[in-house]
Amino acid sequence: MQQPPSPPYYAVIFTSELIDGDSSYSQMAERMIALAGEQPGFLGIESVREGSRGLTVSYWESEAAVTLWKSNLEHLQAQELGRKQWYARYTVEVSRVERSYSFGDDA
Amino acid sequence: MQQPPSPPYYAVIFTSELIDGDSSYSQMAERMIALAGEQPGFLGIESVREGSRGLTVSYWESEAAVTLWKSNLEHLQAQELGRKQWYARYTVEVSRVERSYSFGDDA
Repeated sequence: MQQPPSPPYYAVIFTSELIDGDSSYSQMAERMIALAGEQPGFLGIESVREGSRGLTVSYWESEAAVTLWKSNLEHLQAQELGRKQWYARYTVEVSRVERSYSFGDDA
Repeated sequence: MQQPPSPPYYAVIFTSELIDGDSSYSQMAERMIALAGEQPGFLGIESVREGSRGLTVSYWESEAAVTLWKSNLEHLQAQELGRKQWYARYTVEVSRVERSYSFGDDA
């Protein structure tokens, strides 16, 4: 996020390692970012990939918004497909941001 | 982290954008990862870079461990140097991990 909101808010940290990156994975990942952006309580997303390793943090207004996103039908289908064909491993951590500070042009 | 500990624990989410990546930045970044690993309460670190954009999450046992790491002298010097010569912007978010789940070989 360029401008984090005032804490508290929620951050979902998604750390993943792909078996084998392919274009179908990239398409799904882009679709999930777009879909997340349409959900209630969505605040922003940061996603960085380096080879097979990916780190994505999505930000949410409340824990309820996190739960709603986790159970979104299209998202559930992507999670299932991911476990079958893309991910060697992943970890999801749901965290509550207690404070934040920024440096830079837009801070 | 390959195996996240049982929550609660702390995650420091560091999102950065470099003005211009150079070898001195990489050296400093590697040194900070090694230095973090020597601090009390350190649990692990994940760091991914894609061009000028970086996302690093460091994990800590407690908020006290986060505060101690933030005020480490060598780390403070790196932060100051970073603001002068490497970073266009960065955001630091201190969060408390409330739950986590994993998928994969080592989960």
